[in-house]
Amino acid sequence: MAKINDNFIKLPESYLFSDISKKVNTYKAEHPEAKVIRMGIGDVTLPLTGEVIHSLHAATDEMAQAATFKGYGPEQGYRFLTETIVKEAYLPLGIQIDPDEVFVSDGAKSDTGNFGDILSRDNRIAVTDPVYPVYIDSNVMGYRAGALNSNGKWSNIVYLPCTPDTNFVPELPQEKIDVVYLCFPNNPTGTTLTRDQLKVWVDYAIQNDVLILFDAAYEAFITEKDVPHSIYEIENAKKVAVEFRSFSKTAGFTGTRCGYTVVPKELLLSCEESDKKVSLNKLWNRRQCTKFNGTPYIIQKAAEATFSSQGKEEVKALIDYYMTNAKIIRTSLENIGLKVFGGVNSPYIWMKTPDNISSWEMFDKMLKEVNVVITPGVGFGPSGEGFIRFSALGNREDTIEAMERIKHWNIKKQ
Amino acid sequence: MAKINDNFIKLPESYLFSDISKKVNTYKAEHPEAKVIRMGIGDVTLPLTGEVIHSLHAATDEMAQAATFKGYGPEQGYRFLTETIVKEAYLPLGIQIDPDEVFVSDGAKSDTGNFGDILSRDNRIAVTDPVYPVYIDSNVMGYRAGALNSNGKWSNIVYLPCTPDTNFVPELPQEKIDVVYLCFPNNPTGTTLTRDQLKVWVDYAIQNDVLILFDAAYEAFITEKDVPHSIYEIENAKKVAVEFRSFSKTAGFTGTRCGYTVVPKELLLSCEESDKKVSLNKLWNRRQCTKFNGTPYIIQKAAEATFSSQGKEEVKALIDYYMTNAKIIRTSLENIGLKVFGGVNSPYIWMKTPDNISSWEMFDKMLKEVNVVITPGVGFGPSGEGFIRFSALGNREDTIEAMERIKHWNIKKQ
Repeated sequence: MAKINDNFIKLPESYLFSDISKKVNTYKAEHPEAKVIRMGIGDVTLPLTGEVIHSLHAATDEMAQAATFKGYGPEQGYRFLTETIVKEAYLPLGIQIDPDEVFVSDGAKSDTGNFGDILSRDNRIAVTDPVYPVYIDSNVMGYRAGALNSNGKWSNIVYLPCTPDTNFVPELPQEKIDVVYLCFPNNPTGTTLTRDQLKVWVDYAIQNDVLILFDAAYEAFITEKDVPHSIYEIENAKKVAVEFRSFSKTAGFTGTRCGYTVVPKELLLSCEESDKKVSLNKLWNRRQCTKFNGTPYIIQKAAEATFSSQGKEEVKALIDYYMTNAKIIRTSLENIGLKVFGGVNSPYIWMKTPDNISSWEMFDKMLKEVNVVITPGVGFGPSGEGFIRFSALGNREDTIEAMERIKHWNIKKQ
Repeated sequence: MAKINDNFIKLPESYLFSDISKKVNTYKAEHPEAKVIRMGIGDVTLPLTGEVIHSLHAATDEMAQAATFKGYGPEQGYRFLTETIVKEAYLPLGIQIDPDEVFVSDGAKSDTGNFGDILSRDNRIAVTDPVYPVYIDSNVMGYRAGALNSNGKWSNIVYLPCTPDTNFVPELPQEKIDVVYLCFPNNPTGTTLTRDQLKVWVDYAIQNDVLILFDAAYEAFITEKDVPHSIYEIENAKKVAVEFRSFSKTAGFTGTRCGYTVVPKELLLSCEESDKKVSLNKLWNRRQCTKFNGTPYIIQKAAEATFSSQGKEEVKALIDYYMTNAKIIRTSLENIGLKVFGGVNSPYIWMKTPDNISSWEMFDKMLKEVNVVITPGVGFGPSGEGFIRFSALGNREDTIEAMERIKHWNIKKQ
């Protein structure tokens, strides 16, 4: 009798964004005149840039002629893109990556979600709290999470609380772990680690044979000098860390789909049943060749275009636009006495609710009283309770109007 | 200590296409004057059609304007595409599918490879032999294959030999199985099942609680009336079968990447630890929402374009072109007394080697004596020994020239 993987029915329904959507739709039905501004989901709003559009058209024309048509490409990504990534994304940071260490994909969600395929089911996983839910849910599916406790935490997962007390820097775990997901600049809190703070983690990983899965999807938003863009800026990180990157937020590719993952050849893990050490690079290559058929040629050409000199200027302009939004949000909220975090090296602003209002109460108040939609922090994990997340990825006009409304609103009134 | 999934090191290196490539490159280096014709890998050669190109350009232009720009789309695929698939791919066959039962992806390889995520690792898997290697390898990775025996077979996988004796129709397994992969029209043999033959499998699956994973990637090449395009043409198949389809071979999307999987809502499987029945549709939806972020908008628009009335004509012309190649290959080989299969409802021709020459010996002979590259049948499994596969997906000129060379060649000479 064919059976399912029972872990799927242990997973609670993912209600966060559907609950938000239902509440917003109900409100709008009751108040059709209201101009609701959405600052919730972290989706971009600016269109693709000129170089990217030009490249998509040119690559499409190549696909129209037999002589330049492209069929199956390498599962790992075309060499023109992996070599450009090495040269443009890593060399300027002083990091030497081999093009064979770069795996182009359809995005960081796929790669962080699928990476567990090549890892033992017995590994003990650690995540920050709050956290991007994919890290947890994919490990539940992969038989690594144990049982769901009444506090909303999984019995076999180690949670590393990130709170204002430590400026959202996770402390090293007390118990033994095997794999840790680190996302910096962080989604959802928008906070970062300095080079010294990240070095603590790399050293810990080396000393304890821990694998770091480093999600750098927001690195392009970094503005401060002592914040690393890549974990490989830290000495010896190639021995312990895989890095996930994406064109989604950087170049507005959320609907265009391209990302990449760096799996260094010198990163070795032990086998389950022997002490033999195996290169993760080879395993991920096998996984991708078996279960993936490469990113569309025209999309890879579009991704390459973001690295031309014109392309880089355009990407910088996108980032600047969103980071100006972030500054407007931060400053506006601070000016009325609210406590905010993030938004300096990231397009997310993490706000403490006043008077210990719960995340969802704050959501409801803002929707009803100023018609602004945010994301309740508790949706990202228990330590997110009492916080809300603003996204700076909207358009300028809406961002300014939302802040004006909040400024003229007595946020604490009942 | 972080550990790997040991199943990855149990997998033998996949040498088939790299071995072919090495042999061809060595030969070409030694004989730079030789005009080598490749009829091995099943990649298409004709460019994308006019409607698809037009649609890619138009969708690219949408992405260039804020008002029409698309960010994150639904993980399941845009409604415009799932509804079109329902209407154009299934309704004409008399099959009612709900758009929510269609999941758009980047291709059938990803979906067949990833589908095991939602299935218990205790399921006993059956595959035809010869077989598309992804079905086996992804189950090795998923802890379902056991140990690799010296005969090249995995201890926990049930192999269903497909041989000329039964015209490559697999017989029902003698032992208990839970899941079976069926690919018809078949890769690599190019053979098919009639409606009656497929009904035997559906009835068997219903009676024995077996899940059928039906790969219909080549359905567009079917020319005979009694060959089903979809497993859902068989009564009650929705209770037991998932169907995988692809635009790769149909519309030349091997480098453009789009496919889809139908998971009927009425398809229920048992839990591992209880008798509760669960809908696979809901599980696959959760899997896709967690580990996938949707197919690029512009690619989905391109896929939609293959269903317009002009688009359908263009696709038909592509298929006709390749099927004319197939006929040329079949006829030419038959005319010189060779035994061939397939090529009537599929772009693959499966040929018995003369005088019981092994698949690889035949490969070497053909490369050296007529400079034609084929795929050795044994690369698809033990029952493929003594066969070779020709692909009809090349261009007409090369196909004709290859057949001319073979016609004037004494294939049996030593």
